[in-house]
Amino acid sequence: MPPSCIESLMLPVKTVKWVGDADGVLDLLDQRLLPQRVERLQCQTPQQVYEAIRTLAVRGAPAIGVAAAYGVCLALRNKPEETPLAEAKTLVAQTTLHLASSRPTAVNLFAALNRMKAVVQTSPPCTAQFKQRLLDEAHAINQQEQDNCQTIGRCGAPLVPDGKAVLTHCNAGALATTGIGTALAPFYIARQQHKRFTVYADETRPLLQGARLTAWELTQAGIETVVICDSMAAALMQAGRIQAVFVGADRIAANGDTANKIGTLGLSILARHYDIPFYVAAPSSTFDRSLPDGAAIPIEQRNGNEIRRFNDTLITPSQAETWNPAFDVTSAQYITAFITEHGILRPPFAESIAQTIPQQTDQHDKRESYE
Amino acid sequence: MPPSCIESLMLPVKTVKWVGDADGVLDLLDQRLLPQRVERLQCQTPQQVYEAIRTLAVRGAPAIGVAAAYGVCLALRNKPEETPLAEAKTLVAQTTLHLASSRPTAVNLFAALNRMKAVVQTSPPCTAQFKQRLLDEAHAINQQEQDNCQTIGRCGAPLVPDGKAVLTHCNAGALATTGIGTALAPFYIARQQHKRFTVYADETRPLLQGARLTAWELTQAGIETVVICDSMAAALMQAGRIQAVFVGADRIAANGDTANKIGTLGLSILARHYDIPFYVAAPSSTFDRSLPDGAAIPIEQRNGNEIRRFNDTLITPSQAETWNPAFDVTSAQYITAFITEHGILRPPFAESIAQTIPQQTDQHDKRESYE
Repeated sequence: MPPSCIESLMLPVKTVKWVGDADGVLDLLDQRLLPQRVERLQCQTPQQVYEAIRTLAVRGAPAIGVAAAYGVCLALRNKPEETPLAEAKTLVAQTTLHLASSRPTAVNLFAALNRMKAVVQTSPPCTAQFKQRLLDEAHAINQQEQDNCQTIGRCGAPLVPDGKAVLTHCNAGALATTGIGTALAPFYIARQQHKRFTVYADETRPLLQGARLTAWELTQAGIETVVICDSMAAALMQAGRIQAVFVGADRIAANGDTANKIGTLGLSILARHYDIPFYVAAPSSTFDRSLPDGAAIPIEQRNGNEIRRFNDTLITPSQAETWNPAFDVTSAQYITAFITEHGILRPPFAESIAQTIPQQTDQHDKRESYE
Repeated sequence: MPPSCIESLMLPVKTVKWVGDADGVLDLLDQRLLPQRVERLQCQTPQQVYEAIRTLAVRGAPAIGVAAAYGVCLALRNKPEETPLAEAKTLVAQTTLHLASSRPTAVNLFAALNRMKAVVQTSPPCTAQFKQRLLDEAHAINQQEQDNCQTIGRCGAPLVPDGKAVLTHCNAGALATTGIGTALAPFYIARQQHKRFTVYADETRPLLQGARLTAWELTQAGIETVVICDSMAAALMQAGRIQAVFVGADRIAANGDTANKIGTLGLSILARHYDIPFYVAAPSSTFDRSLPDGAAIPIEQRNGNEIRRFNDTLITPSQAETWNPAFDVTSAQYITAFITEHGILRPPFAESIAQTIPQQTDQHDKRESYE
């Protein structure tokens, strides 16, 4: 597959896109409707971005961070030039606080919002300039996440086995980022390098991000994709049909413990059991060195109707309870390596993370105000 | 809960019921429609029973066996008394062969059909008597499976932790048998004994037997039930919230390797990882001592549309492939014990199975004609 195919793949699925100048709008692919319908959401207010994040119209740790950064810009949309700078700054600060409450687990959200808050600390000469600085910062965050995806893809591609099969969970692809993805980026680059391989995609209940999103973007890129139910991974591994597992991450603690979509923990234990490499692909914005280990990562509990209902059909009796955590925490000991824009990190992770991943002190000092 | 409640629970969910004399009909609960609708299917021909088994209107290894036995009786429904005995026997033999091809994995199907075939070897004085002998044998198989469920329940109840929580997968309850179930039977008996506990039920994709069926029958019995997605079991175990796992079985080899609903293998590995007892509850009709180990168990592959579609909604792009095995094989080494009508079997299973489970030579010599 020539590079142009991957490029052309990326264009129609542009997850997060700013349209216009500092008074522009945020244009999101509405991922709730895929693969049946390809529709986009135009957000003109921070509240619309908040709702889009909360309801998973936009999801995936890096994409959430970028969307929230642009959401901050919308706080000043169409505000007149003569708006006092102090008033504009107050509005932006309030907006970052609000957007930070949209989802609790992915640290990229807080990292991006902290970068936007840092713009508030600067001294622009006027409100118009302040608006432009905010948009410039959001664009910079977006560009950095795109660049990170490319670098992660190049670092991870050698780990994709030629002529074999890999497994992934949830969607950590183009749809979860503003670039070519994290866990899926090595697949795109390996495909450019003419490797042939099959990707088994866990359907990823309850919201089916694997069946709906990963299968959609991989098949569009011409990558052979087989959707399985989450419960089938063990049988595939037992049959010797999986050579490596690639997943993304929502937050990675200083010791390497990793929060990712519910089901990742079980996969990691199965991979270890069958001696299959288990890779976590994530940009440095997903690392949270302020947390010593995974026990400190807040796990979002979501509405049980995500389990109870499928579309409009009730699939379980109303008397039954549900338990619906959006994420679980994979112990660092089950992770073979992290694939980051700074290269491949190997155990012991406490050391390799400390040596490789920037501390981002300014961000994490302030993140406490959100959590 | 007094015994009467369990009794009254069992009546409305009577899975398989013969109505009438030797020219009667087979009345099945249509499990495809639960929990939305409680409807029954009246089968008047063996072909209708074949379709009911193949399409999972009736499912669960013991229930399939009983339904197939009654299906054999339907071969001679309304056949006149003057039908030559040889003709009647030929028809019955053909019917057993056909019903045996409905599903490949659950050995109870073959065990029941072999008992019906053995009736063909007897020398009834006339066709009317032959019909009656067939029905008597089907009733005997039905009664034996009901008795087995009760005994399994009594044997397994001491393993249900009081005040704690257990996990089960798929449905191995009243709906999978003609009695109070296999894996769920210990829960019903423990509840009669006033134990308090919570049952976490894996929803069991793709056909949601846990969310639809297990949650339906357990909540009707007043047992606290929490439905989770299959991928959430590891996080529950990691949190220390599961004290034991109970599952059923579709076929158990001589060494204890066990075929059961897809996802069981993964659960067993997770349970071992977290040092949680993993119990397989099954009557002796589910053991197949003619197979040395699980590698010889035929695994049914089902239509990928079970994964691709939910009701009428396509949940994954049509270009994506699927892989849809109905069962997996759990290695005996991950099983803590079998709960059978002959008591609890502990490792080494090759010995405990050989010492406890009848060889059923007459069945297995002939089963080869089916497989």
